[in-house]
Amino acid sequence: MPADARPADPMGMALDEARAAAARGEVPVGAVLLGPDGSVLARDGNRVEAGHDAGAHAEMLVMRAAARRLGSPRLTGCTLVVTLEPCPMCAAAAVHFRVGRILFGAYDPKGGGVEHGPRLLARPDCLHRPEWVGGVREREAADLLRGFFQALRG
Amino acid sequence: MPADARPADPMGMALDEARAAAARGEVPVGAVLLGPDGSVLARDGNRVEAGHDAGAHAEMLVMRAAARRLGSPRLTGCTLVVTLEPCPMCAAAAVHFRVGRILFGAYDPKGGGVEHGPRLLARPDCLHRPEWVGGVREREAADLLRGFFQALRG
Repeated sequence: MPADARPADPMGMALDEARAAAARGEVPVGAVLLGPDGSVLARDGNRVEAGHDAGAHAEMLVMRAAARRLGSPRLTGCTLVVTLEPCPMCAAAAVHFRVGRILFGAYDPKGGGVEHGPRLLARPDCLHRPEWVGGVREREAADLLRGFFQALRG
Repeated sequence: MPADARPADPMGMALDEARAAAARGEVPVGAVLLGPDGSVLARDGNRVEAGHDAGAHAEMLVMRAAARRLGSPRLTGCTLVVTLEPCPMCAAAAVHFRVGRILFGAYDPKGGGVEHGPRLLARPDCLHRPEWVGGVREREAADLLRGFFQALRG
């Protein structure tokens, strides 16, 4: 199946997905899964509330969708672009899916699992180690989250 | 929606799901999700190959199915019964789903995330801490896995 064209700004696309998630009443996190050639295989935002699925983080949704599209549970050479530091569930899933690279936006000192908490990808027992770069357009991603939670608190 | 009757032997049911997974060519791990009253909300085995989904571990499937059935992303007071020690992805998902208790069969020194590796549920930064008991009918679960991998190696 042909993938979508290579976006000039995949983090901008992930931020758009985060805004769309917020409009649905979801925590505003968005993600894009790029194939080895940089084309978009999947894009989505959090869907925890809509699907009654605590596992429906944006990262899980785009990894699963991209793997279905490729017809393989391995996303070798692919890049996961996400607006927030992945939690331990999503970081461990990226290992299972053999994701090549992770770019994330805001850091998550309380819930993150890459640069915080168990730092899963840096552990010597990690079975596959995606490269990662954090802090990409950090402020925009963080502002979105802050705005959402401030509005919730009224 | 009424849940199924309370099984006398939920780990036996999970072992049946593991055998069914093996028959489909999947790594033989099975899981059952019990409601607070001990009734079966969901049961399934690994479906990584069938769904091209590296996240389709038995635990993820039963937590998601049970949450859909309950109409809530929270599985408060529920018990996850699984034939193998959960990996970090599944252990972290059990935290997100607020699972009350985990019973697992075989220990997994290489891939486990509860008693091995990052020991996620024992970390002080764990946001919700399910109780857990490992080694329940350990030998049966381990024999199933060993037999499956021996057959793969021919």
